[in-house]
Amino acid sequence: MKNIAVLFLCICLMGGCKKTSEKPESVSLQKSVASSQTQDFGIVIHGGAGSILKDHTPDSLRMAYTQKLEEAVRAGHTILAEGGSAMKAVRASVKIMEDSPLFNAGKGAVFTHESTNEMDASLMDGKNLKAGAVAGVMHVKNPIELAYKVMENSPHVMLYGEGAEEFAQEQGFELVDPAYFYTQDRYETLQRVKAKTKKEEDSGIPRKDTLVKTAFYDSKIEDYKFGTVGAVALDKHGNLAAGTSTGGMTNKRWNRIGDSPIIGAGTYANNKTCAISCTGWGEYFIRGDAAYDVSAMMEYAVKSLEEAAKTVINEKLPGEGGGGLIGIDSRGNMVAEFNTPGMFRAFMGENGKPVIEMFGKE
Amino acid sequence: MKNIAVLFLCICLMGGCKKTSEKPESVSLQKSVASSQTQDFGIVIHGGAGSILKDHTPDSLRMAYTQKLEEAVRAGHTILAEGGSAMKAVRASVKIMEDSPLFNAGKGAVFTHESTNEMDASLMDGKNLKAGAVAGVMHVKNPIELAYKVMENSPHVMLYGEGAEEFAQEQGFELVDPAYFYTQDRYETLQRVKAKTKKEEDSGIPRKDTLVKTAFYDSKIEDYKFGTVGAVALDKHGNLAAGTSTGGMTNKRWNRIGDSPIIGAGTYANNKTCAISCTGWGEYFIRGDAAYDVSAMMEYAVKSLEEAAKTVINEKLPGEGGGGLIGIDSRGNMVAEFNTPGMFRAFMGENGKPVIEMFGKE
Repeated sequence: MKNIAVLFLCICLMGGCKKTSEKPESVSLQKSVASSQTQDFGIVIHGGAGSILKDHTPDSLRMAYTQKLEEAVRAGHTILAEGGSAMKAVRASVKIMEDSPLFNAGKGAVFTHESTNEMDASLMDGKNLKAGAVAGVMHVKNPIELAYKVMENSPHVMLYGEGAEEFAQEQGFELVDPAYFYTQDRYETLQRVKAKTKKEEDSGIPRKDTLVKTAFYDSKIEDYKFGTVGAVALDKHGNLAAGTSTGGMTNKRWNRIGDSPIIGAGTYANNKTCAISCTGWGEYFIRGDAAYDVSAMMEYAVKSLEEAAKTVINEKLPGEGGGGLIGIDSRGNMVAEFNTPGMFRAFMGENGKPVIEMFGKE
Repeated sequence: MKNIAVLFLCICLMGGCKKTSEKPESVSLQKSVASSQTQDFGIVIHGGAGSILKDHTPDSLRMAYTQKLEEAVRAGHTILAEGGSAMKAVRASVKIMEDSPLFNAGKGAVFTHESTNEMDASLMDGKNLKAGAVAGVMHVKNPIELAYKVMENSPHVMLYGEGAEEFAQEQGFELVDPAYFYTQDRYETLQRVKAKTKKEEDSGIPRKDTLVKTAFYDSKIEDYKFGTVGAVALDKHGNLAAGTSTGGMTNKRWNRIGDSPIIGAGTYANNKTCAISCTGWGEYFIRGDAAYDVSAMMEYAVKSLEEAAKTVINEKLPGEGGGGLIGIDSRGNMVAEFNTPGMFRAFMGENGKPVIEMFGKE
């Protein structure tokens, strides 16, 4: 098993992590799941994108992801079916994924260079464009819930680290011991990534490059993955909401902030257009303003959600920006678009039948 | 003088801080300065927007701002005239404003609730969409220079606080004593704002509201101001760049991050469209994705820079989002658009004649 892991890590380091959309017309791995009918409500969730391939996803692991994705999407769907808000549904789905060690968010957050866990999350309400975000929190079990409190009970949109946790305590959150976020898998991944990075640095490769190349290795799928979880929903009242939560990149340093807590980059919602949650190489999603770009293209260029999502993921992300996004529009059309081999995702609309997918062609 | 300050603070607290664009057709304070001719290079800078009015800006202060704005715009212009890059010009102009106590950035940064100074800055290069940003730094004399190093020498776009400063040291920055950022004016402003906030809280107004209402009081102009400095430039090679730097809101808490360090919100540059730097009530600029929105409107709705800037500032910012932005497009058209009574700004194009303005109608 370890040999397979090393093999795939090598493939990744040899360029397999690169965005495959430089020649979008020849890419066979892209996949868009879209329903074109209008429906009253619906929810889409994701648990990260990456080289998620059938060949190295044992049945037991596939089953574990399927079950957890179904549990998460059903939690949000139940709220929507009962007439609850998109915002409430998004929080419920994200919270379940944050509580699972399977995903790089909350409990399963990856480790920083200093062997800590720094988590980021954000939420946006399409009804009034209100938003909340936290970055660099280390003692909050459910960062998505803290982002919600920032939105509702502070005059701010974005709080960081210790300050965010002071606010959390004022809001009645119980801070948890960092030990809660320890998972053996993620810790071993950090050690492997550090060893690899050191070896590359010793051979003269600038740290700027080594850090990034190794940062997305994920031992769970025996290859690379842009972890992060997210959900987007449309409720029966016509309101959209989006939420995203992550542990960021393994071995990240210097209190790096990725795209997940940034409104417009990792998360965006607007009743006029769509709700979007991204997962991927955060730096490129920030530079591309990816989540808002889908909305802007729908609003100004009158593109459909599917067209806009495809364009952003396959053409507009700058450089080697790998990853994907999920979206839902004001008519209930749903999409999951990615330029990586796979993406953990689930859809559930009016008909109440969950669709769970993880590979590129299903 | 103190009585005048209190009077204007009261006016501000009674609603004067509100965005005036709820009825944009009747607003007489908006102003757009735009040149429609094509030119090879040019630069626009700003030093914040707010209730900057002739009646309460003594000649000596007006002179001080005029001189410093001219020095800053000339510094960038000289670089452009000699064939230097837009990125270099933007940094040079912003640095001069960071080094002056007149502006809320660098030396003149406002104080947080804890009597510290937490500074944010970001830069974007329109040529390759590369970007760098720092937030919450407390010991860096020129945050704009650190944002540049993040862009050039790290794999990341955005770093926070202590981590950002550790990176700064690795990059050869000398950290400065926080005492460097002490200015009597700003410190007194904090005390005044705290007293006012406390009084309001004691009277039962939720802190969520009191914090924001008082946060933009600026003793320099005896009223409210959304401090922040920024610059945008077009160089002879056709490249655009934008940069923004700020101390944020007086009395800010919980490690609040505003729009200035957020790519897409406070800063954006893309050779295809424009370079933008914003100043204003950061939370609304984040929710509106203001800087990128100007670019998106130009790209997708084929609007001119001036049309897009007017639309974003006067129609698209959500809620009470007050403030302004400066922009330059790939043909050298320049704009400063704001929904506040005034904005410190300067323009300099091919003809080498600086235009310095601060009030609404000049």
